[in-house]
Amino acid sequence: MPESKVARLALPRLLPKLQLNERFLQTRKQTLALCAPLEAEDFVVQAMPDCSPVKWHLAHTTWFFEKFVLAHALRDYGPFRKDYDYLFNSYYETVGSFLPRTKRGLLTRPTVKEIYGYREIMDQEILKLLSKVIDPAIEARVELGIHHEQQHQELILMDLKNLFSQNPLKPRFVAKPRLSRALPAETLNWITHEGGLVTAGAPATPNFTYDCETPRHRSYLKPFRLANRLVTQGEYLEFILDRGYQRPELWLSEGWATVQAEKWEAPLYWEKTAEHLWNHFTLHGMAPLEFMEPVSHLSYFEAEAFARWKKMRLPTEIEWEVVAANYPVEGNFVEHKWFRPRAAQLGNPQLFGDLWEWTQSPFLPYPGFKPLAGALGEYNGKFMCNQFVLRGGSYATPITHIRPTYRNYFPPHARWQFSGFRLAQDL
Amino acid sequence: MPESKVARLALPRLLPKLQLNERFLQTRKQTLALCAPLEAEDFVVQAMPDCSPVKWHLAHTTWFFEKFVLAHALRDYGPFRKDYDYLFNSYYETVGSFLPRTKRGLLTRPTVKEIYGYREIMDQEILKLLSKVIDPAIEARVELGIHHEQQHQELILMDLKNLFSQNPLKPRFVAKPRLSRALPAETLNWITHEGGLVTAGAPATPNFTYDCETPRHRSYLKPFRLANRLVTQGEYLEFILDRGYQRPELWLSEGWATVQAEKWEAPLYWEKTAEHLWNHFTLHGMAPLEFMEPVSHLSYFEAEAFARWKKMRLPTEIEWEVVAANYPVEGNFVEHKWFRPRAAQLGNPQLFGDLWEWTQSPFLPYPGFKPLAGALGEYNGKFMCNQFVLRGGSYATPITHIRPTYRNYFPPHARWQFSGFRLAQDL
Amino acid sequence: MPESKVARLALPRLLPKLQLNERFLQTRKQTLALCAPLEAEDFVVQAMPDCSPVKWHLAHTTWFFEKFVLAHALRDYGPFRKDYDYLFNSYYETVGSFLPRTKRGLLTRPTVKEIYGYREIMDQEILKLLSKVIDPAIEARVELGIHHEQQHQELILMDLKNLFSQNPLKPRFVAKPRLSRALPAETLNWITHEGGLVTAGAPATPNFTYDCETPRHRSYLKPFRLANRLVTQGEYLEFILDRGYQRPELWLSEGWATVQAEKWEAPLYWEKTAEHLWNHFTLHGMAPLEFMEPVSHLSYFEAEAFARWKKMRLPTEIEWEVVAANYPVEGNFVEHKWFRPRAAQLGNPQLFGDLWEWTQSPFLPYPGFKPLAGALGEYNGKFMCNQFVLRGGSYATPITHIRPTYRNYFPPHARWQFSGFRLAQDL
Amino acid sequence: MPESKVARLALPRLLPKLQLNERFLQTRKQTLALCAPLEAEDFVVQAMPDCSPVKWHLAHTTWFFEKFVLAHALRDYGPFRKDYDYLFNSYYETVGSFLPRTKRGLLTRPTVKEIYGYREIMDQEILKLLSKVIDPAIEARVELGIHHEQQHQELILMDLKNLFSQNPLKPRFVAKPRLSRALPAETLNWITHEGGLVTAGAPATPNFTYDCETPRHRSYLKPFRLANRLVTQGEYLEFILDRGYQRPELWLSEGWATVQAEKWEAPLYWEKTAEHLWNHFTLHGMAPLEFMEPVSHLSYFEAEAFARWKKMRLPTEIEWEVVAANYPVEGNFVEHKWFRPRAAQLGNPQLFGDLWEWTQSPFLPYPGFKPLAGALGEYNGKFMCNQFVLRGGSYATPITHIRPTYRNYFPPHARWQFSGFRLAQDL
Repeated sequence: MPESKVARLALPRLLPKLQLNERFLQTRKQTLALCAPLEAEDFVVQAMPDCSPVKWHLAHTTWFFEKFVLAHALRDYGPFRKDYDYLFNSYYETVGSFLPRTKRGLLTRPTVKEIYGYREIMDQEILKLLSKVIDPAIEARVELGIHHEQQHQELILMDLKNLFSQNPLKPRFVAKPRLSRALPAETLNWITHEGGLVTAGAPATPNFTYDCETPRHRSYLKPFRLANRLVTQGEYLEFILDRGYQRPELWLSEGWATVQAEKWEAPLYWEKTAEHLWNHFTLHGMAPLEFMEPVSHLSYFEAEAFARWKKMRLPTEIEWEVVAANYPVEGNFVEHKWFRPRAAQLGNPQLFGDLWEWTQSPFLPYPGFKPLAGALGEYNGKFMCNQFVLRGGSYATPITHIRPTYRNYFPPHARWQFSGFRLAQDL
Repeated sequence: MPESKVARLALPRLLPKLQLNERFLQTRKQTLALCAPLEAEDFVVQAMPDCSPVKWHLAHTTWFFEKFVLAHALRDYGPFRKDYDYLFNSYYETVGSFLPRTKRGLLTRPTVKEIYGYREIMDQEILKLLSKVIDPAIEARVELGIHHEQQHQELILMDLKNLFSQNPLKPRFVAKPRLSRALPAETLNWITHEGGLVTAGAPATPNFTYDCETPRHRSYLKPFRLANRLVTQGEYLEFILDRGYQRPELWLSEGWATVQAEKWEAPLYWEKTAEHLWNHFTLHGMAPLEFMEPVSHLSYFEAEAFARWKKMRLPTEIEWEVVAANYPVEGNFVEHKWFRPRAAQLGNPQLFGDLWEWTQSPFLPYPGFKPLAGALGEYNGKFMCNQFVLRGGSYATPITHIRPTYRNYFPPHARWQFSGFRLAQDL
Repeated sequence: MPESKVARLALPRLLPKLQLNERFLQTRKQTLALCAPLEAEDFVVQAMPDCSPVKWHLAHTTWFFEKFVLAHALRDYGPFRKDYDYLFNSYYETVGSFLPRTKRGLLTRPTVKEIYGYREIMDQEILKLLSKVIDPAIEARVELGIHHEQQHQELILMDLKNLFSQNPLKPRFVAKPRLSRALPAETLNWITHEGGLVTAGAPATPNFTYDCETPRHRSYLKPFRLANRLVTQGEYLEFILDRGYQRPELWLSEGWATVQAEKWEAPLYWEKTAEHLWNHFTLHGMAPLEFMEPVSHLSYFEAEAFARWKKMRLPTEIEWEVVAANYPVEGNFVEHKWFRPRAAQLGNPQLFGDLWEWTQSPFLPYPGFKPLAGALGEYNGKFMCNQFVLRGGSYATPITHIRPTYRNYFPPHARWQFSGFRLAQDL
Repeated sequence: MPESKVARLALPRLLPKLQLNERFLQTRKQTLALCAPLEAEDFVVQAMPDCSPVKWHLAHTTWFFEKFVLAHALRDYGPFRKDYDYLFNSYYETVGSFLPRTKRGLLTRPTVKEIYGYREIMDQEILKLLSKVIDPAIEARVELGIHHEQQHQELILMDLKNLFSQNPLKPRFVAKPRLSRALPAETLNWITHEGGLVTAGAPATPNFTYDCETPRHRSYLKPFRLANRLVTQGEYLEFILDRGYQRPELWLSEGWATVQAEKWEAPLYWEKTAEHLWNHFTLHGMAPLEFMEPVSHLSYFEAEAFARWKKMRLPTEIEWEVVAANYPVEGNFVEHKWFRPRAAQLGNPQLFGDLWEWTQSPFLPYPGFKPLAGALGEYNGKFMCNQFVLRGGSYATPITHIRPTYRNYFPPHARWQFSGFRLAQDL
């Protein structure tokens, strides 16, 4: 693939927009395509309480369509299997009780094969429904299910990486790709913004957005600037070598407590070799650091401490958004199948793809926020506490899933997501 | 005391401003005055990990003056007792290691008497220093120490209340006062604000403020209104009776998890009698509810759930501040010695005193925030994560301690502070 | 199968004794035969910290032969795969570090198929060795490996039952067998013993025993009697209905603390139906109680409390052994493939098979006990603390594995083993 | 005090036996005498969950007399204070609910002064009762209360030592005594016993014993020998220097797990100085090791590991008792007020006093054991699980409290009791 083409890649966006049923089917197939390299055993284990088994992801996303589309649209709908409401509801308290998250790894039955069967039958039911019914409310629910499934595609990769990392055999998900890197943008530069009264958040348009991206609203910003690329492994190694993990004055109080309790001394997945060099676990197995590659699998605490060490800060989510709105959604997404971040490229500020970027903004309701009605209101709104916003998507995000107003969120100690960060400064 | 006078009480503020040394001495004496009702045994026990023994508060506030004033100002200062740096440093990582917070209750020695002696000697040293040195930087540190001590005066009452509440004998701190209540403001009314570009935060003036109140900065607000009083015990009881603690759809996800893990079914200190009526523990011992009294000892989760149940919301801290800036700092403070909240009074919107009010704002740096230099930069800045801002002071706060820009903060699950809340709405 | 034959069944014991290599092969095949009903997914999950995945059992027993036979017997033996020492060592500290027990469920790789391959190759290597070498010390190690594998056969069933019980779908391991029950021994009778100086423990003979069964030694007993059958589900239900789980005076202090902390109100695997009847989970799925069937999956605490409620006691292990030595090793073992305990039969006191019987004897060294030399000394000796002895084998034990001197042991709170108990009395 | 007298000291035993009321009063006074060196603050803190505040001990022992003597003997007895049943019941489930053990440190009220008053009034009531009533059953309960109080005298010292050890100031309980040591018995010798059928346990005589010491019963022993003194600090240091705490093969499995989880590398209260020498905390404050002094504050695990390292073993409790029965009850008891163990003296095998000696015997019912009737049956019987027996008393035990049949018990990981050990061997 010629480099010039890569740099401006914006895959499906360039295509004529597909019909809803086509996008539905494509998304469902893409989930299974991601599972192709797996053995049956890899589908069932829960690597840690925050993770779910791949099989559970496959079943839950299917149940989401069954519960929120089929059972909603069809009078007297009889469930595919009655137990599944209990087994595969994730956290929708208002639709009934559910298996506690920490027990998802105990479900050796139904088998992977049975879940593949469940998916197939539900796919046909959804397609049948779409062919019969013309109801924007139903279509909106299918649309939500598609985006929901895309989120779980990324979760599958996150959770698999965590699982494999804990296996002393360090299995790899895929072989290392040949990652073209013709024009790395090695120098750190800045993108400035004059501040003032700005507008952010998703407008009321027919395009899909999550409820938490709305309403569009005004904020007042002071002048600032953002780095033109993510912080690299090489830069982060300097922080480690400068005893960053031993100096409490660089950390938030809760971050420092976490560093000590968890004995952190590097990002998640970094391991010291017998020769005292750092390697890190990737979806291609253990690998040496590459200094120009963005550093990943950091908590908010680590990103924030690094920024303080640099006498800078992290961007706010509004700062990030008003800058990102000026750039096309291009970058290293899951469709490239590189499964790792790539060094910054000339002319591309890495705002989209590669790694989710921590912002200094807690995940809060925008002024005037209204969650979706009913159970779907639990999708985002109830998590607006003790979480920080990340922006821009990662190498494991589908490109059709991301947009400048997109708000992802994790607690500040979480590290198993594909997270990185960029620096910001007041002017 | 005639009621009309109470309603407009603004105690020390009306007096001519005292000299620094006078205010120092007065503050130090006030701390001991608060301890007058205590037995020796009450000084040493740590009621829970978040609390400290009274003796530790007495020693720590003294050590704060010794370490940050005397040892800073005097060349070759020899510490009063070398061990005290370890015993009575609270959390200043950059001045050395310290006794873990959870072990403060193990210090039966030094005795209470020894700590009183320590206080006396350090008081004399500080007064001697103030009489000799004229250095605004030193004076600023004494000023900080005074405000620091005032915070610990409130902490002493918080921690004592928690300690006594856990004793099956339910001892009381003081006898119940005769609490005048001539003109209760029973009706809920609203204070409206048209929104727009507003300014909040403390300006750069000679008056004391904490670093986290600065810099003064602009924000953009939508039109809103605030309730003219705090939510009452009677109103909160309706929430309980409407099964508020059993309905997950009313709660943030983390709040609901806490309700279940902690088996919450009412605010902290509420207890059911044998007749299934609610009583609550106060600084005067167990007492029946009073329906017009503001409800207290709630977590952020509970305040937020109540607001959702009412189809309203909590104020942001900026909304609160721009409204409060229009009112005099008057209300029920520690100087009144009522030691409990009072029903709202006609003409006083309870913005100051009575109870700290939860806002929906996480405790974050204001744009352009710079913490104090050196160890004192740890005072506030390192806690800017997973905490929510409370405003306005309580019946346990010294009136000279509070101002419209004042930001208090606690984690969303905390309930042992003197917290309440008021409702807000978009217009 | 005619009933008369069942009652006196003593399967392989009646056969001419097989050669070591034949018994080795038969044992190895029996392990895989037990796994026949499983899906690939069932092999990998760890149901709780005390359990291991089936795949791990298959690999560990193989590693045991590799490490303690092949690597011991063959000069310059190169391991099948170097990582396996770390992955599949259970607890032999003196042969090197090992994967913590709680992480066995993270090993989705090596796959089940790879472990089957590992078994096959090691089997061939062991057989080759046995055909070449005539060395009693090597043969003794193969013998130990056979008995070790038999223990893990029972563990596989214990761990699978626990795993399936936690799956809301309640899958069954095998279909319910038609369990002949021609001559139940419904009446409780007693077997008396006059006491005095007795001899117990395994003598120094060529027959295999574990080190902890030796040396044979003398003890002094007072006259006593043992029940002629196990306590039944019907009898235990009476204890429950008499509020046995609510009366602290019936329990050991640590037992009562466990009842409260774990909220026990019945044996493990008992569940209340919507109609407030008790069912229990079996290897055939959920099933109603059968009142004459021995009660199983009890902790020592429960057995001991029941005995106190009956104003009786549990047997000591020496009492049990001197009585059992007078009976043939006959009963309901894994070879019958009933996979559940059976009501007591006329003429068979249920001393062998059906369920392991708790004794009141802690697992201690017999006077003069010497553990095996080297790493194999860790097999039993290091567990002689805070465990109680169980005797007689269960329906999941191979009949060739059991003998009157056999000592099994579990901590007093453990319930997932196939445990029951019988009553005893002083005379 | 001339040395010759010390060596044969058997204080109150030589006196004519006192009347019950005199012994009652003397015991009650002795408890308060032990508290003389304390500050008010020292009475209220709970140093760890296993410990209780001194004030609680003072109140509980008094409540024991009130509940089990006064309320038992006097018709219509009205309790001194109704709450005290809840506050000061330790673990008697059958007399009602009680404050959980872990909350004893929260009771700043009632004050120490109030508890002293409670003691005084109850003392008068008991004396009045004894002067009026002649009832052997009542007298037996007073007798039990006296022995109970003596146990708590030792617990007061145990718990205080633990409390002071956790204070960075390392306060001392009393000044170091001048400990005469004229004739240390430096050489290790052995006391042999030919084994055979022996009798142990307390006979049915009018002398007081706890229920768990009965009945007297026969056991069969193999020939053995016991060391003629306790293991010393010097000997134990050799174990440490030989990497005893780093070698899993020396430890029971549960012991090794504890060593790692608790990061043990020496007995409790040992601390390394800046110069890498070991000191230890004593009731006289921090002190250097004395090599001939018995090593103390060891768990069963450590004693057992040391014995394995020496290729020896610990005695059983029956071995210990049949040997000790041949020696007078003489040694270093609390009446000597040395408050520390003393090097072995010529002619005294240290069987009594100095330190409690771990045996390899779990605390079990003797054959035919019957606990006391009613609530007092909870005194010992319910603890017969996961505890090991210690014998002989310590420097903190009253000499009138000990006898050859006396059985003390602690869980194998406990170290805050005054424990040591001696070696044994098969012959």
